[in-house]
Amino acid sequence: MTGAVCFEDIERAARRIHGHVRRTPCLRADQLSAPLCAGDLWLKLEYLQVTGSFKARGSTNKLLSLPAEALARGVVTASGGNHGLAVARAARLAGVPATVFLPENAAPSKIAKLRRWGAEVHVAGAFWDEAHVVALQEAERSGACYFHPFADREIVAGQGTVALEIIEDLGTVDVYLIAVGGGGLIAGMATAIRRKNPAARIIGIEPKGSPTLHDSLLAGRAVRLPAVTTRVATMACGQTDEAIVESLRDAVERIVLVEDEDLEAAARWLWFELGIAADLSGAASIAALMTGAVTIEPGARVCGIVCGAGLEGHATP
Amino acid sequence: MTGAVCFEDIERAARRIHGHVRRTPCLRADQLSAPLCAGDLWLKLEYLQVTGSFKARGSTNKLLSLPAEALARGVVTASGGNHGLAVARAARLAGVPATVFLPENAAPSKIAKLRRWGAEVHVAGAFWDEAHVVALQEAERSGACYFHPFADREIVAGQGTVALEIIEDLGTVDVYLIAVGGGGLIAGMATAIRRKNPAARIIGIEPKGSPTLHDSLLAGRAVRLPAVTTRVATMACGQTDEAIVESLRDAVERIVLVEDEDLEAAARWLWFELGIAADLSGAASIAALMTGAVTIEPGARVCGIVCGAGLEGHATP
Repeated sequence: MTGAVCFEDIERAARRIHGHVRRTPCLRADQLSAPLCAGDLWLKLEYLQVTGSFKARGSTNKLLSLPAEALARGVVTASGGNHGLAVARAARLAGVPATVFLPENAAPSKIAKLRRWGAEVHVAGAFWDEAHVVALQEAERSGACYFHPFADREIVAGQGTVALEIIEDLGTVDVYLIAVGGGGLIAGMATAIRRKNPAARIIGIEPKGSPTLHDSLLAGRAVRLPAVTTRVATMACGQTDEAIVESLRDAVERIVLVEDEDLEAAARWLWFELGIAADLSGAASIAALMTGAVTIEPGARVCGIVCGAGLEGHATP
Repeated sequence: MTGAVCFEDIERAARRIHGHVRRTPCLRADQLSAPLCAGDLWLKLEYLQVTGSFKARGSTNKLLSLPAEALARGVVTASGGNHGLAVARAARLAGVPATVFLPENAAPSKIAKLRRWGAEVHVAGAFWDEAHVVALQEAERSGACYFHPFADREIVAGQGTVALEIIEDLGTVDVYLIAVGGGGLIAGMATAIRRKNPAARIIGIEPKGSPTLHDSLLAGRAVRLPAVTTRVATMACGQTDEAIVESLRDAVERIVLVEDEDLEAAARWLWFELGIAADLSGAASIAALMTGAVTIEPGARVCGIVCGAGLEGHATP
């Protein structure tokens, strides 16, 4: 994408998408059967967002930033599931068709939801990067507008608006816990947090089977992973974007890595303790605490982003 | 129970349970794929309450109103599921054992959750009233304290605190949509609403296969239904309490009746539009709107109570 997102992009996105996406609440996760950390835990309930995830923010911002003629031949994207849903809904707002390419491990419930949003759905490739190649070819063939899930300034700016709302509702937060797929959410949020709440610790969470940002921040550039082995479609990405690495280089404390099973246990925890049916990326902040990967000082205010809704963690309730 | 609950009981309950249950948010259900009513729809997300439903309020209030010696032999109850979970958690707060009797159609996921909260679980009878008879016998035999789900002033007062929070967060509401099982929630809420927001319309929702309050308000007394045929365990009750009928006689506009299938469709709607996995009682307010059973004036502020979490409506996502 053309350079890292800046704070003004995010402010502009917030004004643009206002009234087109939902304002989601922050919930204090207290009264637990056992404490999860020494701090004061808050959850930003972004799974309540339109289409079930924060992705509606970025896609709506991109949609509203484009002239009508750019959309005349519809939109196309590649997605682990949530971004596709957001693009399908954006296309519906614009009255144009949406085509979504998903990897083979995308959740069946998300494919069903995509069809209900009116998208044409194709399954292509083992993980996101492979679906992305096919989707790009389709965009070139059809002339449809490609909505990249993270290598796009307007998409990243839209995702960053999550942080503005948290700061409005909670004031200063000491620690942010943010799931990472391609890195769009954490890049947008970190840009807003560094301006409005500069002392905060920003921690990303990736599956061990897709350490894209972890390895890229270590290398100082967007590396291509030799293999992507996580089963979590919404957190699988073989290579992020240079501009995202640039946004995060001095902003993120670190990226912690968790097992797929940790994410599943965290999703079950969210269900048992809070009645929240999160997808596995939506449970990432909880996994970071449950595994002890992140240590919280007593009394610190922690905000985890429950970024997506899903039923896949709930085969055994 | 000993007379209808009064507003001061509810204020006392709010002070008593503060810090022992969760403060749940109200969400504006806007940005829907198609409007559900002409009004401005808000949802009180009470499925985010401890143990997954508003029932934690009543049980915690009762627990904290009792002297320690009343609890020495543990607690026992009969429940469609949610009240049992709330009692199990209250017993854990007190450090005493809980025994919960459930009807045969209780959701398996709730039984599993009850065991995780440490309760001893027994399945007895086809619907709540039958489980209640067995549970009462057990309480008599063991000397445990029986927590009645609705014929109890402290329980009803606790449930009424839901309304206080809605009025604090939203101000005046024009229409309240409230699911009915035994009637404890609507009786408590109506008592608070009549004092703080007296012009509001209060509408109850029951399954056609368990029209307990509907028939009782028509008869002017708590009638015994000849049969209970709903499959929805949390909304099945063959007879409510005289004091509940008394609380509601001049307070409720009417009770609307919906099919079990309407509740299932409403649960699917909540999942598709909002990422909320509600149990079927939690979807009742949506069912009342989707079926057209309740008509809303343009611009009216409507508040539906999403009173319980559940996965049973989601076999087909």
